[in-house]
Amino acid sequence: MSVTMEQVVNMAKQRGFIFPGSEIYGGLSNTWDYGPLGVELKNNVKKAWWKKFVQESPYNVGIDAAILMNPQTWVASGHIGNFNDPMIDCKQCKARHRADKLIEDALSEKGIEKIVDGLSFDEMEKLIAEHNIACPECGAHDFTSIRQFNLMFKTFQGVTESSTNEIYLRPETAQGIFVNFKNVQRTMRKKLPFGIAQVGKSFRNEITPGNFTFRTREFEQMELEFFCKPGEELKWFDFWKQYAHDFLLNLGMKQHKLRLRDHESEELSHYSNATTDFEYQFPFGWGELWGIASRTDFDLKRHSEHSGEDFNYIDQETNDRYIPYCIEPSLGADRVTLAFLIDAYEEEELEGGDTRNVLHLHPALAPFKAAVLPLSKKLSEEAREVFAGLARDFMVDYDETGSIGKRYRRQDEIGTPFCITYDFDSKEDQQVTVRDRDTMEQVRMQVSELRAFLEEKISF
Amino acid sequence: MSVTMEQVVNMAKQRGFIFPGSEIYGGLSNTWDYGPLGVELKNNVKKAWWKKFVQESPYNVGIDAAILMNPQTWVASGHIGNFNDPMIDCKQCKARHRADKLIEDALSEKGIEKIVDGLSFDEMEKLIAEHNIACPECGAHDFTSIRQFNLMFKTFQGVTESSTNEIYLRPETAQGIFVNFKNVQRTMRKKLPFGIAQVGKSFRNEITPGNFTFRTREFEQMELEFFCKPGEELKWFDFWKQYAHDFLLNLGMKQHKLRLRDHESEELSHYSNATTDFEYQFPFGWGELWGIASRTDFDLKRHSEHSGEDFNYIDQETNDRYIPYCIEPSLGADRVTLAFLIDAYEEEELEGGDTRNVLHLHPALAPFKAAVLPLSKKLSEEAREVFAGLARDFMVDYDETGSIGKRYRRQDEIGTPFCITYDFDSKEDQQVTVRDRDTMEQVRMQVSELRAFLEEKISF
Repeated sequence: MSVTMEQVVNMAKQRGFIFPGSEIYGGLSNTWDYGPLGVELKNNVKKAWWKKFVQESPYNVGIDAAILMNPQTWVASGHIGNFNDPMIDCKQCKARHRADKLIEDALSEKGIEKIVDGLSFDEMEKLIAEHNIACPECGAHDFTSIRQFNLMFKTFQGVTESSTNEIYLRPETAQGIFVNFKNVQRTMRKKLPFGIAQVGKSFRNEITPGNFTFRTREFEQMELEFFCKPGEELKWFDFWKQYAHDFLLNLGMKQHKLRLRDHESEELSHYSNATTDFEYQFPFGWGELWGIASRTDFDLKRHSEHSGEDFNYIDQETNDRYIPYCIEPSLGADRVTLAFLIDAYEEEELEGGDTRNVLHLHPALAPFKAAVLPLSKKLSEEAREVFAGLARDFMVDYDETGSIGKRYRRQDEIGTPFCITYDFDSKEDQQVTVRDRDTMEQVRMQVSELRAFLEEKISF
Repeated sequence: MSVTMEQVVNMAKQRGFIFPGSEIYGGLSNTWDYGPLGVELKNNVKKAWWKKFVQESPYNVGIDAAILMNPQTWVASGHIGNFNDPMIDCKQCKARHRADKLIEDALSEKGIEKIVDGLSFDEMEKLIAEHNIACPECGAHDFTSIRQFNLMFKTFQGVTESSTNEIYLRPETAQGIFVNFKNVQRTMRKKLPFGIAQVGKSFRNEITPGNFTFRTREFEQMELEFFCKPGEELKWFDFWKQYAHDFLLNLGMKQHKLRLRDHESEELSHYSNATTDFEYQFPFGWGELWGIASRTDFDLKRHSEHSGEDFNYIDQETNDRYIPYCIEPSLGADRVTLAFLIDAYEEEELEGGDTRNVLHLHPALAPFKAAVLPLSKKLSEEAREVFAGLARDFMVDYDETGSIGKRYRRQDEIGTPFCITYDFDSKEDQQVTVRDRDTMEQVRMQVSELRAFLEEKISF
């Protein structure tokens, strides 16, 4: 049975994963707040990424650059000149559209597949006229001309609102890495190949965001820029593609929900010699999850030209000087968190016609690793001791309300992989019953064995 | 020997802790980027806080609300009306000052201690005239009148720059907690007392930021809002004060560098019935580290009035209805990270007249928990295996360049608590030498014992 977005959004809200932002004030379009379970899930995704891409990697180190950067950064990166969407308004109902999306959607309904991205405004306006495209909101054929709309959020630093202190919220974390290339290389005495990783918020003033947390104006990225010797970039491109793929599968993502799409040469950015998109099959269709791009020396060269800084690397073995090439495997933390949530969701039919809702999250990602459940409130004190012992090392829930069956179901719904039941025998033999979320099987073990048991289960 | 800010700033930059933001473009005033070691240190601070304030607490849960919130939030919280600094300009040199700071500093030089915060603009202007206060930049006595300056960063969401979609970067994370009070209470079925914790970026357009990362316009907060029954708030206020104090001392902060300052009744905000500031003795003087405030029902009441939402809690034991009271222990992640860095810094004189720079960071906070050092490059392969084994569980460094003494010093400087030397005997007996950063003592142990050894050292 396939999952609908409505089911996931409802579950996320009812179970404390994701709430609409500023909800008591009617919300703020397209903002979302992670609740108590959502923040743990998303933090676990970020920790898992950091573990694999920084901690365990002999090549990579992390940084955490400021969201507010010198605007020259965005001149050099091209965001001030080129980070625009084509915007068009319906004169009748005032609805605002992204012209390329408007045309693609209208043509797609007629069975015509066309990539509009990259066409000139003239060409797009011609397509609208040719195909007699109407406003999807009101049906009118009365559009303004197409204008550029820059997607960066603008603000003012310092105490006057003049263009001299106009700054931007970063639209990507990547540039914070590039501008620090030399700082990192020098202070960490790094030799090529090496990578710099960063997790942090970025902001894009999308004209038409949507699909829950799939595309939001405020979002969190997990980016790696991996620098290598020119000529070795395609080897490393393949390496990181495989590494990223393993990462998702090792965390339990279903392989058949994932596809890799290599960009055709005409689709590649002018500076890229290889790009692959990982796409996940969301309920609303295939959506980009992870973009892996070989970006040559484009970014460092641009910053070199604009800052006057010399980004040449001196190869101490060959004495060659060159600007390193760069592989960029980058993904959205919110988006992949959503994919894991959808992937794990199941309304399971049990023997005897019963059903249960269960989140089959990998134990490394599950908000709670275990829940401690005293069989009776008379055992609260002892059960709380077990909770406190485990809580030194793991996020653990504690629940003493309702029948044990109800409590199991509640933990299934939020993805807790193990329920630990403390019963009247436990006082005598120091043993507890551990129930597995997925198999519902129960085993008896010593309280003192729980830590090692959970550690092994969450390792990946 | 006391540490100067210059020493700390230099060390932070040279050793990869903190770089000036956007440095290749001449920086952006008052922004800082955490380098490879800084991001680990700061993440460790945040993880330690989450462990103690969320994971181990039977009361608290976390959330992660959006930075961009519905502007009504800031009307209700009072930030749109009252979150202002008094701004004054020198007409001669155009220097911009915070009027209250200008007056306090000038009077302090004359030996007069006066709290100016809270005076009216008229009263401040009178003080400037009375004491013949000059511009500290140029010496002129020619000021504009004082105006309000709102400290919130403004931006525009959506695609037009009109006041209807004017929004703000949140100036504090606290309000993201208050607006979600009912969402959290309902979905987590929480009973009083309980707390909601959040870590995240906030932004304040300070007129005069400074002192490195002590006061920055972009900064990260670790906030807890703890809700309890009215009448029990002072008991919980004491509880969290003690808990916060223990947190700092358990992570190794020097007790004599820390002082607690209770607000006098005339200094208290009108809604607060108790406030204590934790102050740390920075090289530039005592600075606020952690503010703990008993805020009564002020915040929930304001949001109730502005949103129409009913924030009454129904006490199931007594059937009483009331708006919960709230204790707020909140601190800045950047600020406390800076305090730990300063606190740990030492230029140590050794026997024989030698000196070494060492960071005595608690192992839980140290960027690397250990460094693996092969005695010779001939042992690279085996030493890298030890590294890879430990890197599954810990942030570990690997260094094979230079004499072993030099490598020890390098690790001392960045606070690595243990150096693990792999020598020619290690191949035979599977033992390595473990050197303690602080005592410089060495012990021999099995490679297979390292994990448990490090785990015990980083626990707190």
